[in-house]
Amino acid sequence: MRIALIGVGLIGGSIGLAARERVQAEVRGFDPDPDAVAQGFERGALDHACGSVREALEGADAAFVAAPVAALAGALSEALAAAPEDCVVCDVGSTKRAVMAAVCDPRFIGGHPLAGAHTAGVAHARSDLFDGAPWFLTPSSITDGMLYERLHRLLVDLGARPFAVDADTHDRVMAGISHLPHVLANVMIAQAASVVEEYGERLPHAGPSLRDATRVAGANTAMWRDIYLANADVLVEAIDDCIARLTDVRDTLAARDGERVAQWNEAARADRRRLLESDVPGGPLHELRVAVLNRPGVVADVALALGRAGVNITDMALHPAPDGRTGAIGLWVAGDDAASDAEDVVESLGLSVVRP
Amino acid sequence: MRIALIGVGLIGGSIGLAARERVQAEVRGFDPDPDAVAQGFERGALDHACGSVREALEGADAAFVAAPVAALAGALSEALAAAPEDCVVCDVGSTKRAVMAAVCDPRFIGGHPLAGAHTAGVAHARSDLFDGAPWFLTPSSITDGMLYERLHRLLVDLGARPFAVDADTHDRVMAGISHLPHVLANVMIAQAASVVEEYGERLPHAGPSLRDATRVAGANTAMWRDIYLANADVLVEAIDDCIARLTDVRDTLAARDGERVAQWNEAARADRRRLLESDVPGGPLHELRVAVLNRPGVVADVALALGRAGVNITDMALHPAPDGRTGAIGLWVAGDDAASDAEDVVESLGLSVVRP
Repeated sequence: MRIALIGVGLIGGSIGLAARERVQAEVRGFDPDPDAVAQGFERGALDHACGSVREALEGADAAFVAAPVAALAGALSEALAAAPEDCVVCDVGSTKRAVMAAVCDPRFIGGHPLAGAHTAGVAHARSDLFDGAPWFLTPSSITDGMLYERLHRLLVDLGARPFAVDADTHDRVMAGISHLPHVLANVMIAQAASVVEEYGERLPHAGPSLRDATRVAGANTAMWRDIYLANADVLVEAIDDCIARLTDVRDTLAARDGERVAQWNEAARADRRRLLESDVPGGPLHELRVAVLNRPGVVADVALALGRAGVNITDMALHPAPDGRTGAIGLWVAGDDAASDAEDVVESLGLSVVRP
Repeated sequence: MRIALIGVGLIGGSIGLAARERVQAEVRGFDPDPDAVAQGFERGALDHACGSVREALEGADAAFVAAPVAALAGALSEALAAAPEDCVVCDVGSTKRAVMAAVCDPRFIGGHPLAGAHTAGVAHARSDLFDGAPWFLTPSSITDGMLYERLHRLLVDLGARPFAVDADTHDRVMAGISHLPHVLANVMIAQAASVVEEYGERLPHAGPSLRDATRVAGANTAMWRDIYLANADVLVEAIDDCIARLTDVRDTLAARDGERVAQWNEAARADRRRLLESDVPGGPLHELRVAVLNRPGVVADVALALGRAGVNITDMALHPAPDGRTGAIGLWVAGDDAASDAEDVVESLGLSVVRP
């Protein structure tokens, strides 16, 4: 397998290291910054340091475009122009609606790995960066099923857990679990700084809770400015919701309503347990075989429907019939309940499913 | 030295372990929960498991009252009634105005160690819990100077760094660096939970940034309800300030003002560096000797004035003159600049200072 990396930073470099180590891929990389390419080659993330997008994409089976969110549409269209006919092209940006609206190509699949971040740059790339990491995929209704399957399997081989999701859901969920927390970290540190400045500049103030709570404050400005702007509409709604919640707490405190304070705190405790102590369920692997007409988008439709239902596809494989017009999708799903849910979901799409 | 612990939990138990190990103190402990006393004894935090406050305070030189914030005033008045004439009595509560207003006794000094918290109970007590931890002290204008010095030295021996501060400043600073962050963690997790519930209950959502940002969400309800209520007025102001800041970010995002978003993010980055990467300065130790009339409160006044100026007193000692009416305070201060600052501060109080 030949992989092209457009953008050789933390994410691109880690894809290169993992792909070379785990699937013996041949990795070709380009970056607008020649130093990044040289460093990627030196660190073993690349087989070939390329001087252009076109050179990196020569004979590629899969391409990862890791560009800033604001530059993604342009970078993707350049990559797609240079990519072979049967090359899957994806991005790794943190917001998905804008890029999905801008790019229309059966070879393109939006993506977003939830991995890395504290330390940017190929110098910090690691082959195990994606081990166990969720990797959101946003296929479109014209996404080529063969290419979707290829990307899914490659990501599993890199150690990640791909989840299909539509771009709107992706951006709303990320606003709630990532973008708003970044905004609050910024606000919190600014406010703490002004309190400390006013009341005790040189008092000790580096408590562990403030340190943890503001770990992401002032994260990479170039990257985060773009994320904030790309998701601004949804984020504004999330901030409004947050202000409403804060106003409610404020009024409860102003009324000295101890019982309500206690209930609110207990609810947060329960929410945290539910959200952070749960994870994708495991269990025995089941194979489901879904008969499909080989029409564009059917694989993406199945993946998205399962994603919506919260079913994690552990692995997938396409089995085209000799006539080339029909075939089957093999899906591996972990857990008995998840497997029955998956059956229901697939059947609700009007497709027939068997357990071979 | 004989130490009394009223309340044998994480903090009380850790004081007991450290005091026995590091200053060979005899530690007597009482807790309304007999199991806590038994477990404290078993874990080696106590020499004597006592059945009452009075029994624990027999012959005590110093007493630590570790009770819930709402119960502090009552617990302290009981302890002070039972404490010997020359016993220093302090609390370890997270807010200080209410307790300072409620208790008026030259033997009492308010206190608040910034240590521990994740795991309550004497089972998690450790003799090194206070190593390097700031320990706020709020003496009053009638606090006995000999007792202040005794407590200061004891806390240094336990590994802590005592800082004198007035109760109002303490509560305002804690609202900014601890109580508001707890409120925001609760709000953040509740909002993330409702977003996940609405858009993808079973999508992966346990990203490391949400996990860190909400580590303190739903912290011990009994303890935190009391803290929120005891500091409600200041916390309401802090929430209002936070809402104003969020509204500002919201408007900036709604206007898609990328330049302002970038400036705001850079400012947060700078604030975080300034706040969390700085710490109390070190440097060569200087001794300052302050001549004082032996009037009540002078030691507390000096400690508070130095605290306000951000000068950390590394160690202190009292040197009463034979006439019993005058004397000197020996102060050790780390760093050349801090030592000159300390000289200025002490002289501004009308006291004379020499470097012996």
